Amino acid sequence: YDYDGPHVVTQVPGPRSKMLLKSLDNIQNTEAVQFFCDFKKSRGNWLVDADGNRLLDVYMQIASLPLGYNHPAVVSALTDENNLSAFVNRPALGVLPPVDFPDTLQKLLQVAPPGFCQVQTMACGTCANENAFKAVFFWYRARQRGSLIPTEEELESCMRHEEPGSPNLTILGFEGGFHGRTIGCLSSSHSAPLHKVDMPVLDWPIAPFPVTKHPLDVNAQENRLEEERCLDKVFQLMQEYKNKGRPVAGVVVEPIQSEGGDRHASNSFFRQLRKLAKENRSAFVVDEVQTGAGLTGKMWAHEHWGLEESPDIVTFSKKMVIGGLYFKEEFRPKGAMRIMNTWLGDPAKLVILEAVLNVIQQDRLLDNMTETGQVILQGLEKIQDKHAEVFSNARGRGAFCAVDFPNTSTRDRAVATLRNKGVQCAGCGAKALRIRPALIFQPHHARMFLDILEDTALEL
Amino acid sequence: YDYDGPHVVTQVPGPRSKMLLKSLDNIQNTEAVQFFCDFKKSRGNWLVDADGNRLLDVYMQIASLPLGYNHPAVVSALTDENNLSAFVNRPALGVLPPVDFPDTLQKLLQVAPPGFCQVQTMACGTCANENAFKAVFFWYRARQRGSLIPTEEELESCMRHEEPGSPNLTILGFEGGFHGRTIGCLSSSHSAPLHKVDMPVLDWPIAPFPVTKHPLDVNAQENRLEEERCLDKVFQLMQEYKNKGRPVAGVVVEPIQSEGGDRHASNSFFRQLRKLAKENRSAFVVDEVQTGAGLTGKMWAHEHWGLEESPDIVTFSKKMVIGGLYFKEEFRPKGAMRIMNTWLGDPAKLVILEAVLNVIQQDRLLDNMTETGQVILQGLEKIQDKHAEVFSNARGRGAFCAVDFPNTSTRDRAVATLRNKGVQCAGCGAKALRIRPALIFQPHHARMFLDILEDTALEL
Ligand code: FES
Repeated sequence: YDYDGPHVVTQVPGPRSKMLLKSLDNIQNTEAVQFFCDFKKSRGNWLVDADGNRLLDVYMQIASLPLGYNHPAVVSALTDENNLSAFVNRPALGVLPPVDFPDTLQKLLQVAPPGFCQVQTMACGTCANENAFKAVFFWYRARQRGSLIPTEEELESCMRHEEPGSPNLTILGFEGGFHGRTIGCLSSSHSAPLHKVDMPVLDWPIAPFPVTKHPLDVNAQENRLEEERCLDKVFQLMQEYKNKGRPVAGVVVEPIQSEGGDRHASNSFFRQLRKLAKENRSAFVVDEVQTGAGLTGKMWAHEHWGLEESPDIVTFSKKMVIGGLYFKEEFRPKGAMRIMNTWLGDPAKLVILEAVLNVIQQDRLLDNMTETGQVILQGLEKIQDKHAEVFSNARGRGAFCAVDFPNTSTRDRAVATLRNKGVQCAGCGAKALRIRPALIFQPHHARMFLDILEDTALEL
Repeated sequence: YDYDGPHVVTQVPGPRSKMLLKSLDNIQNTEAVQFFCDFKKSRGNWLVDADGNRLLDVYMQIASLPLGYNHPAVVSALTDENNLSAFVNRPALGVLPPVDFPDTLQKLLQVAPPGFCQVQTMACGTCANENAFKAVFFWYRARQRGSLIPTEEELESCMRHEEPGSPNLTILGFEGGFHGRTIGCLSSSHSAPLHKVDMPVLDWPIAPFPVTKHPLDVNAQENRLEEERCLDKVFQLMQEYKNKGRPVAGVVVEPIQSEGGDRHASNSFFRQLRKLAKENRSAFVVDEVQTGAGLTGKMWAHEHWGLEESPDIVTFSKKMVIGGLYFKEEFRPKGAMRIMNTWLGDPAKLVILEAVLNVIQQDRLLDNMTETGQVILQGLEKIQDKHAEVFSNARGRGAFCAVDFPNTSTRDRAVATLRNKGVQCAGCGAKALRIRPALIFQPHHARMFLDILEDTALEL
C-alpha cells in the first residue's frame, strides 16, 4: 500500500500540469495552483501528479486529508452499500435529518474535547467560525437583556441595522490569527494584508500575539515577558472597547497560529487568556480548524494546555472531514432557525469521518503523531544546528511542525526545490515552512523528508 | 421507480420521529426539525419518514435535491469505480486540482447563463454570495484607484481596519431579500428579523422590493407604479450613500425573493434595475441559489427577463449540488489567493452534478417544469377562485410556485394538515406556501398535490 520513495521524472509542475493550467486559466484565476494531481494513482503519504511524479506529501491538501490518499478504510466506507443513501440524498439536516443522525453525532461526541456534549455540524471551517461567533453574540445579548427572547424594539431596529437590534458587539482576534475569509471571519483575521485589503469589515479589536523564541522552555523567561505584554494588551482592549460601547463578546484564538506562520505560545499563556476572557464575561472560542483531529498528538491541540475550565466553543473542519462546532450548553441557541443554513454539513462526510475515527483509534494514530513528531522536531533541530544560516526556530507540537528560513524568497525557493526533489510541502506566514502530514505519516517517512530537506539546504 | 400515491400511517411526526427527536435534542437545538427521514426507502418525488409514512415531496430538502430521492443516474454515478477517487480524496481545489478539473468545469460552463465563460466553485450558497461580494469589492477598488495592485498605504491600513485599505463600500440589498446567514450575507439580507437580531452587521443600504399583485399582467398598471417607486428609491439610496462616502459597489437581488415569501417583480423591473446598477457603476449580482437550475422552466430564472446586458455575477447552489459563481471576465480577481478557501467546493459534488445535468437534458426536464408549472399555477388559481377566503395571490414561474394564506397561523396549520394528508411542503415569508418540487415532478404529481391542497382548504 505504501510506495518506497519519491520518484521525480520532470520538473514540478511538468508539461502536462502546465498544459492543464492553460485550460483552467481560461475559466478562473489560477495564480495559486501548484500543479495538477492524479488522485487515482496517489496512495497513503504519496501524491502523484499529472506528469507521473510521486511526491512525499507533508502538506496534505492544506492540512485537510487525515489518512492520506485512497486509504482502504475510506474506500471501503465509500463502497459499502449501506452508506450509499448518505451520498445520494443530501438532506437539509436542520429540518429533515436522516434516521441515523443522532447515532452519527454520537461518534462526533465521542471525540469531543473534554467538557463538551453539544455539537453542530457545518460544511467548512468558515461557516464553523461564523456560526461560533453567532452563538457568542446570541449568548451575550441574552445575558445583557436578561432574556432569551428579543424585544419588539430589537426585532424592529435590526431591520434598519440599528441598535439595540443590531448591537455593536465585537470579537477580539490576534495579529497573525486566521479564521476564514468571509466578512465576519475576515474581521477577526490578521495574518496577511492580501486577505483583508479592499474588503469592508467590522472594526473588531486586534490584540498582539506573543512573538516567542524556540525552544519555548529554553527561552521561558523572555517569552514570559512577551506573553505578559500581550495579555496586558488584551485586558486593555477589553476595557477600551467596553468604554466605547462596543464590548468584546468573545475572544477567538488558534492553539498554533497556522496560516500566520506557525506561531506558538506557552500553555500558561492560553490558561491566562482563558481566565481573562472569563473575567471580562467574554466567550472563549478556540479555532481548531487546522490544529484539531490529532496532528499534535492529542485529538485537540488545546488539550495540551491543562485548562482549569474548558473553552466555551471549539470549531473544527479540515482533517475532521466535516466542519462544525462543539459548544457548552449555555451557548446552545434558543429559538428555531438561529443557527441554520440549507445543508448544515453533509452526512456523506460523516460516513467518511466515522471510518477515519475508527482508523485513528485502531492504529493508535495519535501516538504515531507524538512519536513521528519527535523524529521531525529533533531532526529539524539537528539540521538547524548544522545549517544555522538557512534554518531557525524549529518548533512543533506532535507532527505539527515548522521551521523558519531567512526570508520569504529563500523559503519559496526551498519549497520549489523540495518539490523537485520529491517532497510536496508549503509555506505559511512570511518565512516558515509548515509540516502538516497525514496522521499515517510514520518515523521512516519523517526521516526521508529530513534527508531531502537537508540536501535542499546545500542548494539554496 | 415511482410510488403511486401517499401513504400515511401515523401522525407526522410519528412516534419514531419523536423518539429520535429526543436523542437529537440532547446534542443540539432541534426546534426547526420537522421529522426524521428514511432516505433508503425514499424514491423520486416520495419522501418516506422514520415511521413509514410516504409523502409527496414538494419541498425537496429546502429546494435542494434536483432529481428527488435515489435517482438511478445519481446512484450509478456513485457506484461507478471511475468516480471513486473523487469521493475519497477531497482536494484543495485552488492549489492542487485533480487532472480532470478543467474538463469538469466545462460541464458547469455548458449550463452557464448567457454571457458567462468564467466560473468559480464554492461549497454552498453562502460562500458563493460572500465571494461574489468580494469579487465586487476587488473590482470596484481596482477601478477607483486605477490599478489592480493595492498600494502600500492600503496594505498597511487594512491591517488596522482603516481606510483606504478597509474601504467603506456597500452592497445594496432589498427588503424581503435573503442571501445567507454569515455576517456579509446577513448585512444584505432582510427577510426576517429573527435572522438578523442580536448580530452586528455592516450597515448596508436596504431598498424596498415591489409588493406586486398577481397575476402580474392583469395588475400591470398598478404594479408598474409600485415598481417605479422602488426603482426611484434605489436611485436615491445610491446617491445618498455616494454622498456619505459609502458608495454602492454592488446590487444583489433574487429573481424571485424565495425565503422572503415568493415575491415576484416584472421582467421590466429587473431590466431597469440592471440599467440603474450600470449607470451608477455598481456591479449587478443575481442570486440564483434557490431559483437556478431549472425549476422556473429555464436553467436560470433571470433568463426570463430579456436583459440587454447580462448580470455581472450569478451565484448558485442547492439544486446545482455544488455552490459557486459565474462572473464576467472583469470580475475575475487578479492576484493569488484573493478568492480562496481550503476546499473551494468539492469534486464529489461535481460528479453528482454531471449526472444531474445529463438527466436534465436527456429527459427534457426544463420543458417538464414549464408544463408541470402550468398545471400547478392553473390549479392554484382554480382552487383560489373556489376558496377565496383561504387562498390568494397564486403565483409562479415554471414549477416555482406559491400561494398565500390569510395569515401565518393558518398557513402553518395548512402545512401540518398537508403533511398528515401525505404532502411534504413548507412555508416562506409571513403567509406563503412555497412549492419547490424536484425537476422530475410531473403533471400527474401536480394534480395529486392540488387535490390534497383543495381537501385541506375545507379543514382549515
Ligand atoms: S461557508 Fe462553509 S461551506 Fe459555504
